Amino acid sequence: MGRSVILLSILALVFFSNIVFAYDPSPLQDFCVADLTNTVRLNGLPCKDPAKVEAEDFFFSGLHVGGNTSNPMGSAFSAVTVNQMPGLNTLGVVIARLDFEPNGFLPPHFHARATEILTVLEGSMEVGFVTSSPSFRHYKKVLEKGDVFVVPVGLIHYQRNVGAGSIVAIAALNSQNPGITALPNAVFGANPDIDSGYLARAFDLDKKTVEELQQKF
Amino acid sequence: MGRSVILLSILALVFFSNIVFAYDPSPLQDFCVADLTNTVRLNGLPCKDPAKVEAEDFFFSGLHVGGNTSNPMGSAFSAVTVNQMPGLNTLGVVIARLDFEPNGFLPPHFHARATEILTVLEGSMEVGFVTSSPSFRHYKKVLEKGDVFVVPVGLIHYQRNVGAGSIVAIAALNSQNPGITALPNAVFGANPDIDSGYLARAFDLDKKTVEELQQKF
Amino acid sequence: MGRSVILLSILALVFFSNIVFAYDPSPLQDFCVADLTNTVRLNGLPCKDPAKVEAEDFFFSGLHVGGNTSNPMGSAFSAVTVNQMPGLNTLGVVIARLDFEPNGFLPPHFHARATEILTVLEGSMEVGFVTSSPSFRHYKKVLEKGDVFVVPVGLIHYQRNVGAGSIVAIAALNSQNPGITALPNAVFGANPDIDSGYLARAFDLDKKTVEELQQKF
Amino acid sequence: MGRSVILLSILALVFFSNIVFAYDPSPLQDFCVADLTNTVRLNGLPCKDPAKVEAEDFFFSGLHVGGNTSNPMGSAFSAVTVNQMPGLNTLGVVIARLDFEPNGFLPPHFHARATEILTVLEGSMEVGFVTSSPSFRHYKKVLEKGDVFVVPVGLIHYQRNVGAGSIVAIAALNSQNPGITALPNAVFGANPDIDSGYLARAFDLDKKTVEELQQKF
Amino acid sequence: MGRSVILLSILALVFFSNIVFAYDPSPLQDFCVADLTNTVRLNGLPCKDPAKVEAEDFFFSGLHVGGNTSNPMGSAFSAVTVNQMPGLNTLGVVIARLDFEPNGFLPPHFHARATEILTVLEGSMEVGFVTSSPSFRHYKKVLEKGDVFVVPVGLIHYQRNVGAGSIVAIAALNSQNPGITALPNAVFGANPDIDSGYLARAFDLDKKTVEELQQKF
Amino acid sequence: MGRSVILLSILALVFFSNIVFAYDPSPLQDFCVADLTNTVRLNGLPCKDPAKVEAEDFFFSGLHVGGNTSNPMGSAFSAVTVNQMPGLNTLGVVIARLDFEPNGFLPPHFHARATEILTVLEGSMEVGFVTSSPSFRHYKKVLEKGDVFVVPVGLIHYQRNVGAGSIVAIAALNSQNPGITALPNAVFGANPDIDSGYLARAFDLDKKTVEELQQKF
Repeated sequence: MGRSVILLSILALVFFSNIVFAYDPSPLQDFCVADLTNTVRLNGLPCKDPAKVEAEDFFFSGLHVGGNTSNPMGSAFSAVTVNQMPGLNTLGVVIARLDFEPNGFLPPHFHARATEILTVLEGSMEVGFVTSSPSFRHYKKVLEKGDVFVVPVGLIHYQRNVGAGSIVAIAALNSQNPGITALPNAVFGANPDIDSGYLARAFDLDKKTVEELQQKF
Repeated sequence: MGRSVILLSILALVFFSNIVFAYDPSPLQDFCVADLTNTVRLNGLPCKDPAKVEAEDFFFSGLHVGGNTSNPMGSAFSAVTVNQMPGLNTLGVVIARLDFEPNGFLPPHFHARATEILTVLEGSMEVGFVTSSPSFRHYKKVLEKGDVFVVPVGLIHYQRNVGAGSIVAIAALNSQNPGITALPNAVFGANPDIDSGYLARAFDLDKKTVEELQQKF
Repeated sequence: MGRSVILLSILALVFFSNIVFAYDPSPLQDFCVADLTNTVRLNGLPCKDPAKVEAEDFFFSGLHVGGNTSNPMGSAFSAVTVNQMPGLNTLGVVIARLDFEPNGFLPPHFHARATEILTVLEGSMEVGFVTSSPSFRHYKKVLEKGDVFVVPVGLIHYQRNVGAGSIVAIAALNSQNPGITALPNAVFGANPDIDSGYLARAFDLDKKTVEELQQKF
Repeated sequence: MGRSVILLSILALVFFSNIVFAYDPSPLQDFCVADLTNTVRLNGLPCKDPAKVEAEDFFFSGLHVGGNTSNPMGSAFSAVTVNQMPGLNTLGVVIARLDFEPNGFLPPHFHARATEILTVLEGSMEVGFVTSSPSFRHYKKVLEKGDVFVVPVGLIHYQRNVGAGSIVAIAALNSQNPGITALPNAVFGANPDIDSGYLARAFDLDKKTVEELQQKF
Repeated sequence: MGRSVILLSILALVFFSNIVFAYDPSPLQDFCVADLTNTVRLNGLPCKDPAKVEAEDFFFSGLHVGGNTSNPMGSAFSAVTVNQMPGLNTLGVVIARLDFEPNGFLPPHFHARATEILTVLEGSMEVGFVTSSPSFRHYKKVLEKGDVFVVPVGLIHYQRNVGAGSIVAIAALNSQNPGITALPNAVFGANPDIDSGYLARAFDLDKKTVEELQQKF
Repeated sequence: MGRSVILLSILALVFFSNIVFAYDPSPLQDFCVADLTNTVRLNGLPCKDPAKVEAEDFFFSGLHVGGNTSNPMGSAFSAVTVNQMPGLNTLGVVIARLDFEPNGFLPPHFHARATEILTVLEGSMEVGFVTSSPSFRHYKKVLEKGDVFVVPVGLIHYQRNVGAGSIVAIAALNSQNPGITALPNAVFGANPDIDSGYLARAFDLDKKTVEELQQKF
């Protein structure tokens, strides 16, 4: 099975949930609970009738359950999004749980629409981010239980397990729909493929290697 | 000792830290780490020289340590703010830890500049919020371990311990400076006092009761 | 009759009008006059066909007529909102009239989504606001005819008549839907009730007093 | 005396006051009272030390006094701005008073950064606005005492006295610095002059007429 | 044929295209391609089904073709808008081509919702803008091939050909719908007319001249 | 010479210029021309004294001169930024010129803070972008002279020369500081290096290959 299939599966929760976050347009009413059955498409989601809103709309259960880390990366990113919690619509924030097996990691990725702040509940996590061109400055820290780190919006970052045990962490992103772009996948797993000769030149790899990567992702 | 003194102390971390959050102005650079020594006052905080920025600026340690709940409310709200993590400046999000002793609670309060999303790590927490005039609709849920709840920006809410043990929860607020207004304190503990006869009429209490409350808060 | 019923009535105009204000999303066209008959629910309101827009949509008549102050508070807050003036949709501002009988007042309240600026046309009005935790700093002024005062967004404030005659004032709020949360009502008049034992502890009142307040509001 | 000199004088209050309004960046703290003595220039104004802020900062006196209408237009627009009320900084709203002698008017103008809502206290005011290219749709109403009208941000509008007596009106604009561009002046009174042959062609006037207008404005 | 008819025709592309720009609300998803067949009206445009989006939605062909300058102004402003490129919806930017015959110009106008940046591909263009009241400061430059100039949002500006040959220039405006208000037309070509006696006084022209202008525009 | 050195040099113009763009905070005055000599650091740049502002501040010369494409990628991206044109400060837009030799290209990159719209002046350019996880949908077009294409904010994209001759194109980005992150460089050229074993696993390459790449970028 290709690597991209697996990564897609661990990332699917994020996408299908259509998560949200910071710098979103301000709410114009107390709340605008997403009406997930309405087919009108907006910048965001239409609201359900306020008279039908109930406490359940602002509620989600299950963040204490570890994500499925049975994949080549040994990690899981499980976000609670507007699909599980329609009350999040227009409110500009999501919460997520990160799980890492020993040696697990999240490959380089970025969120186009959110800053990410996280705290480690258990384990030892290395987290690093890289600034934009042309400095590509790399800031990193090893986080232990109770440590907090913030990754500014739009910067490439990664997380990996540098301890002996598992990692559990809680993250928050300040958008209703932060977006997540996993780099190896977006480059080598684009659908349809990006021209392989071109990628070979960009990454200074031979064309055959690129085509093998395109098979995997 | 007056109640207000104690509440002030449990809330002081929030204020002196000058926390931040959602719908803040967008960043105009990769980051603008707060220069806490600069005396120029802005809407937000001035930045330090990017050449002097280091990984520590995006880092904080200690969220695994319970807050001090030795106060009449038996609760603690401990926010990691730009004062502890200057890298948060311009990024529009903060993280916090909530602790409740058995029977502890956080009295009604609101955040003028942030939505709050939280998840319970241990214990049983009742959380409720009330919509604005004139409906004053009250939505509430009891949250167990792994449950998530969101409180829309600017709405009055409270949290209380309805289980036998302690509560630990992690919250995120989508602003660099969410603000927190504790209601009994802001009304009866304003400094200088709000006219007691006036408050008596507003709350339909006798003036003596109001003046006693003003002593306490 | 309960106090809450009356307060609800004086505040109903605000809510049913679904007023709006400052920091709302910017307009993307010259105007987007609210189509109050359209059932699609958005963050804000859908627009009517521009070809059917007429001058009346930007017009309202009646702000010279005093509001009904025959209520226990002896005050009225009458806002001109998108329901009376559909042309206000997406424009981020509302106007209102305040009336106070001798000894009338508006109990402590806040607007989650707007700053309020006001000027007194006749009478003597004390206006005060309180900053957020933990300082609870109370700023107040007595305003005479022609005086202007501004209350920053999200801060608790009150107005009361400190003169011998009536007060008439004009206020503007910079949102299409400022929101108004009257404090005694939101706390003691929430629907359904907030737990009385809990409120008793929060406000340091006995439970019976709280339950009486819950009957009144 | 040239017309432009007079119009400049009636409009000067607006400019030197550096007024503010709607869609301004959100505040990141309870308030950021302008420090008018600080020479650092920002997008907006720097704040004074919060410890030195007092109620006077949020206060202005004098809006009951009519503006000086002894000018060829017989009108006055008197805005209360951050220069008179430093507390307005970052809050996105201003208030103003309009006075018109019998037959007075405010020539076509627009506010680049604010919507204007107004109510007539006395007199009969015609107010009209024109939509953008290519429709140039003209909406207008005659307002009597207590009538309200809204002019969307960035649209050309005018006000004139169509009654026998004077007009007094109160307006609010949703920006800390709405800006005002008076059309005849900005076109014919630009400093230095716009090429007269060019303006002649644009307005389909002869060059001599344009040059006379450039003398007047 | 009246001048306004011709100007309307050169400006029509802008309006019917319903262009967009800077400071627009942030996108809440990767894209929201305009569904031009949907009749629901919003602040902006509804999106089509993402599954039906294709590369053509982000594409437009024809900016190498000169606009039609056979009009009294000898100029053409051709904007590529959301109507030609539905993928522009929610993205806050448009591109345009400007053509000027020898002696051609664009009369004074402003964009209520966008800053304009432009570069000259061939020819010699004078561009000028005027600041708001009361300074009416006039900044201007003659641009040759490869020169760039920026006109801040909401300021009146004009462009004219000061060379012997034609001008071709490329402009970008930072809004999905910048809006364009041509001044002579908005004032003298409003529909229905603005009162001529009033305009005569505003522009210090005799009423007959104004009425002739109203016929022309 | 390492590839990264060369790419850094072609990208340096972007960074040192500190470019800007769309969804930036709105201006609060007609303009805020950057004072590049002021050492106070803000979210954006401080303004110079308006009395010292001149037309040159809004002007730049040289976009007709091709960028230096003598580098392994055979391409150049030359942005006119606030460093060359201080008048761009707070205005949320930049303009750029793209040059490609035959066979030249711009490797995959993204702009964290801007949408990019571009038009081809000469040559044949393939441009493609990839959506975020988990779909990684790849949209691409070959653009000829006069064609226009838009790349939504935060999405990975590339451009390459698919014609026989050179390419010249003009692009606009809706931010004062769009940011540019070149992917191969940010991943393999981070400074200090990202752990090579980790990158080997992420990209499914052997560690030796990764280390060779880290030498090159």
